[in-house]
Amino acid sequence: MNKNFMLKTPTAQALYHKIAADLPIIDYHCHLSAKEIYEDRRFQNITAIWLEGDHYKWRLMRSYGIEERYITGDADDKEKFEKWIQTLSTAIGNPLYDWSRLELANYFGYEEPICPENTEKMWTVCCKALAKPAFSARGVIARSGVEVICTTDDPADSLEWHQKLRESDFGVKVLPSFRPDKALGIEKEDYREYLSRLGEIHSVAELKSALENRLEAFVALGCRVSDHGMEAVPFAPAGEDVIERIFAKRLNGEIPTVLEQQQFKTAMLLFLGKCYAERGLVMQLHFGVMRDLSERVFKALGPDAGIDAIGNQIRVSDLAAFLNALDKENALPKTVLYSLNPNDNAALVSVMGAFQTGEAKGKLQHGSAWWFNDHEGGMRAQLQTLAAEGHLATFIGMLTDSRSFLSYARHEYFRRILCDLVGAWVEADKFPDIETLLREIIEGICYKNAKEYFGF
Amino acid sequence: MNKNFMLKTPTAQALYHKIAADLPIIDYHCHLSAKEIYEDRRFQNITAIWLEGDHYKWRLMRSYGIEERYITGDADDKEKFEKWIQTLSTAIGNPLYDWSRLELANYFGYEEPICPENTEKMWTVCCKALAKPAFSARGVIARSGVEVICTTDDPADSLEWHQKLRESDFGVKVLPSFRPDKALGIEKEDYREYLSRLGEIHSVAELKSALENRLEAFVALGCRVSDHGMEAVPFAPAGEDVIERIFAKRLNGEIPTVLEQQQFKTAMLLFLGKCYAERGLVMQLHFGVMRDLSERVFKALGPDAGIDAIGNQIRVSDLAAFLNALDKENALPKTVLYSLNPNDNAALVSVMGAFQTGEAKGKLQHGSAWWFNDHEGGMRAQLQTLAAEGHLATFIGMLTDSRSFLSYARHEYFRRILCDLVGAWVEADKFPDIETLLREIIEGICYKNAKEYFGF
Amino acid sequence: MNKNFMLKTPTAQALYHKIAADLPIIDYHCHLSAKEIYEDRRFQNITAIWLEGDHYKWRLMRSYGIEERYITGDADDKEKFEKWIQTLSTAIGNPLYDWSRLELANYFGYEEPICPENTEKMWTVCCKALAKPAFSARGVIARSGVEVICTTDDPADSLEWHQKLRESDFGVKVLPSFRPDKALGIEKEDYREYLSRLGEIHSVAELKSALENRLEAFVALGCRVSDHGMEAVPFAPAGEDVIERIFAKRLNGEIPTVLEQQQFKTAMLLFLGKCYAERGLVMQLHFGVMRDLSERVFKALGPDAGIDAIGNQIRVSDLAAFLNALDKENALPKTVLYSLNPNDNAALVSVMGAFQTGEAKGKLQHGSAWWFNDHEGGMRAQLQTLAAEGHLATFIGMLTDSRSFLSYARHEYFRRILCDLVGAWVEADKFPDIETLLREIIEGICYKNAKEYFGF
Repeated sequence: MNKNFMLKTPTAQALYHKIAADLPIIDYHCHLSAKEIYEDRRFQNITAIWLEGDHYKWRLMRSYGIEERYITGDADDKEKFEKWIQTLSTAIGNPLYDWSRLELANYFGYEEPICPENTEKMWTVCCKALAKPAFSARGVIARSGVEVICTTDDPADSLEWHQKLRESDFGVKVLPSFRPDKALGIEKEDYREYLSRLGEIHSVAELKSALENRLEAFVALGCRVSDHGMEAVPFAPAGEDVIERIFAKRLNGEIPTVLEQQQFKTAMLLFLGKCYAERGLVMQLHFGVMRDLSERVFKALGPDAGIDAIGNQIRVSDLAAFLNALDKENALPKTVLYSLNPNDNAALVSVMGAFQTGEAKGKLQHGSAWWFNDHEGGMRAQLQTLAAEGHLATFIGMLTDSRSFLSYARHEYFRRILCDLVGAWVEADKFPDIETLLREIIEGICYKNAKEYFGF
Repeated sequence: MNKNFMLKTPTAQALYHKIAADLPIIDYHCHLSAKEIYEDRRFQNITAIWLEGDHYKWRLMRSYGIEERYITGDADDKEKFEKWIQTLSTAIGNPLYDWSRLELANYFGYEEPICPENTEKMWTVCCKALAKPAFSARGVIARSGVEVICTTDDPADSLEWHQKLRESDFGVKVLPSFRPDKALGIEKEDYREYLSRLGEIHSVAELKSALENRLEAFVALGCRVSDHGMEAVPFAPAGEDVIERIFAKRLNGEIPTVLEQQQFKTAMLLFLGKCYAERGLVMQLHFGVMRDLSERVFKALGPDAGIDAIGNQIRVSDLAAFLNALDKENALPKTVLYSLNPNDNAALVSVMGAFQTGEAKGKLQHGSAWWFNDHEGGMRAQLQTLAAEGHLATFIGMLTDSRSFLSYARHEYFRRILCDLVGAWVEADKFPDIETLLREIIEGICYKNAKEYFGF
Repeated sequence: MNKNFMLKTPTAQALYHKIAADLPIIDYHCHLSAKEIYEDRRFQNITAIWLEGDHYKWRLMRSYGIEERYITGDADDKEKFEKWIQTLSTAIGNPLYDWSRLELANYFGYEEPICPENTEKMWTVCCKALAKPAFSARGVIARSGVEVICTTDDPADSLEWHQKLRESDFGVKVLPSFRPDKALGIEKEDYREYLSRLGEIHSVAELKSALENRLEAFVALGCRVSDHGMEAVPFAPAGEDVIERIFAKRLNGEIPTVLEQQQFKTAMLLFLGKCYAERGLVMQLHFGVMRDLSERVFKALGPDAGIDAIGNQIRVSDLAAFLNALDKENALPKTVLYSLNPNDNAALVSVMGAFQTGEAKGKLQHGSAWWFNDHEGGMRAQLQTLAAEGHLATFIGMLTDSRSFLSYARHEYFRRILCDLVGAWVEADKFPDIETLLREIIEGICYKNAKEYFGF
């Protein structure tokens, strides 16, 4: 693999190799397992670390017409790997192709073509490497230059593994993030079972109190950031009595109407937003997603099975009204907006602009190109829109959002794209070739901004 | 015209000239007339084959301020041609400009500039050629390297001309496609008149039966694909009794409410989807379009007059729910999704991904850039999104969607863009320069995938 | 600054320097003050002309984390300038960066880097220049090569300053534009106070008559164009009696419902559209915007404070129905459509195409990339979509939409982008290198089309 992969100009190459390449990684949002990190999981073979649970890859295999038994079924790991390589060999233009190449090169030293003829060689090279202790979960994290990892955790989680990690000698900070989606999921059948995990809860007031207590416990273990996933940011304000009535109805076994769900969620999000603001925590809002679309697959495999998609029913006016409701009480925390629909980029950056203040550089952030958008075109679009409508140099940059320990290659991918973009601007005389300025931009986006923004 | 038109890299040039250029054409969706093909229509002059019925060109002329009499009015053919060349001469960046150049070069050997000064020369060259027998409808099809043509036909069509073509010695397969829009158009004033063309119909059950019978007749003549046009894919499920009541109301002369229309259409689409799945037929869904916007023009010229546009009220959640309703009964046919709104590309490809299975390579397809999007930028966007979020190598590629026999040049246009895109990726080290892999991709998209997908 | 800034090919450079660069400027839509032009305002320092009232810059400063006191607060002008330069120094990819460089170079001869170290030098150079009489409002306009300026004026405006300008010896035409947003703002608290400024009004009929009288007064002073700003183009037709009842209700102190507001606005827009058509005036429709999102800032600073954003709730079907309602009565004026949401580009151009006629070249226009979109990417997207779906050569081109006298540099910015785009097409063999054709395109878009379209 060419060392200047995706770096088309000399300036881009210089920016990457001299500034970006060796900066530590701050992975402020991912789905790694604290338990696996604590226990320092080992991987039996390349299928275990690459394909197990990676529903991005599952989708691509199904798109290529691979039978389910080779994806999530009972085929053996090597057969699954063969089918994956068959799928990947012609997956031109897909980010999984680029990421896989980077992962094969960076972690396994494999730089030959990805093609069916090389399947055996790839299997052998990777499995041999994985057999070494250095390829444990912690080993991979350490060799990737990671400084901070923020996992994604339910308020009801005991944080046992985070506690143990804190007491361990592992040099990388592994911090919990507060993701109370289930506590807001009043429409779900198992909502009452979930509530019981939070304690004895008979009212919204008690729910708020329980969540705030858990938030304190998270903060005590270093939590700096929360996360909310939803189809769209709701804004249906209602009085406290209305919210209590809706909640009481639900405790009684009745599913509230759609409007009532929106009212409940609005109230809870506003409450939590204030909690975050008081503690200087960052609020992440992930929206624009439709989940579990195929009932057939969902019944067989459950959530996170590769059956999600981009939605298009976001109302940015609701988002703006939600932000304003907090802002007008001086209770808007630092906030990161992520929409799964790339059409929303321009509107989101413009909404952010209306709520920026002197409190922080880029108090409101447009999250890095997310999920279906984290390909080269999607990342460029996110960076360009943010530059054109906001202030790119304040951006907190990349995260992995991944379940896989090999995904740190995505940071390299992002940094190459960023340096290529900035380098091209410099060479086109759109920005001066002044090292102090360029360093502020590149170092900031790749590392320093996130460190300062989250307060790690 | 440069033989490397739009092929910016040596790899792109090699891919096009060595692989793509000479592959046969499978035109799996167009609006050619089976009668004209059977009768082997001849064209009196260039206006007859170029401007008659081509509402793409009419729109451009109106945009340039040409009076209607030179577009659809009583001006003579040569005057119309003069006004068209006047319009086209500065139509930089419009696909009609590129297509016209390709058609002039490929069919008429005219390679000089398009400008008002050359109007007379162009008229003469083209009319002289059209006077030759080789420029009949069949002659043009044959010289274009076409292997299969799928026309677009109403269930009530007798298929007389398809029957005659089948019995003729014409070497190109001309197959009917099943497009039952009128049978679903319960809101139209002439719906009952239309129904009478399908037979004696007093209930939804009878309508279904009549349509299924017609579908069988289509299949008997080689039909492999259906087509549905609509503003948006509806999803308003209702019981059979509800649907019968709505239909009875309509038979009684009453126009159902908008919700009832949606319920009726949902039921009929689900029924037809199952019919297609049972027979291994492909379902095409065309949506995102607003039709006949100018009442003034519609009254004068009727439909297909250049007064349609892109709509923006598609709910991808309804589309996903519709697909799921079939998928959960294992009754989802192979399906091609086309939205006229290019903003929907990313969402559509992501929805497709949730329903892909081992049944076929690319069971769900994102249709090639359609109508207002079939320009270079639109085609690139469609290809790039499909590559980034799906599996480009499974794509069934280009169709003409045209009423004109000269439109096969659009396949060349598409192939050049595809080869340029893939070639650029190879030269940027995003994909290896391995002939077997590249051939699988290019041959597949230009020819083999469609052949296999539709089962021609 | 390189004289070929943004001009990447020799053809682009030739088009710009030989054709575009020296054409006069027609600024058919801006927010300059006729009073300041008449009084030939002088500027005390660079902060006065650059930062006072420029909420584009305010947003960027807030995004960079600058405290409000250095933006709109009581910090002194030099401190504000320092904070602005600090913000701008790393604002890579933002149009304010490019514009500022052009303004510094063109008006002040400052061509060194923008960086904190140079703040003092920049302050001195600019203030020294501004002290010269040639840097008065009229001086700047004159040296910018401006031929026509259309300001934006309320019907209730006396047009006193336009009258005086007309009688003055100022060589540049400064014409009023008719913007009756307040007369349609029936939902506003101060609506009745506003009405009283138009005269004694007791009915919709009287309101219409008052507006038509004012329109006549505008036309008498050279007005050629109107303007309407709104979240979305409404289409809720209702009878005259309904509209009168809604209006009576409002006169009575009651705020009409949302539907009633839409009905009132639809009726007024249709009425005014007809008034414009009768007089050969152009109608501009600006939509897709959400205003004054932060109540906190709005309370402190009022409107135009940098707290607006892009909305995404436009229904293009309503827009099409509105245009059709006028078109079917042959009462559709020349119309320019601007959406703040760049996603609407393709749909808007396609809707325009349905209403074009032989009355004018490009009777319906897609307005130049507006506000949050007037960066290089946004301008390219607008030009490319218009070229691909409409007829680019009929485009009326750039406007400043600005409150600042230095903003004429945006015309240079636009012209460079246009020439670069067209030049690249020529060099890629997408258009012939024929001077007459290229001149028609470039001269037309930069100057002649607007002159003819508005009838200046």
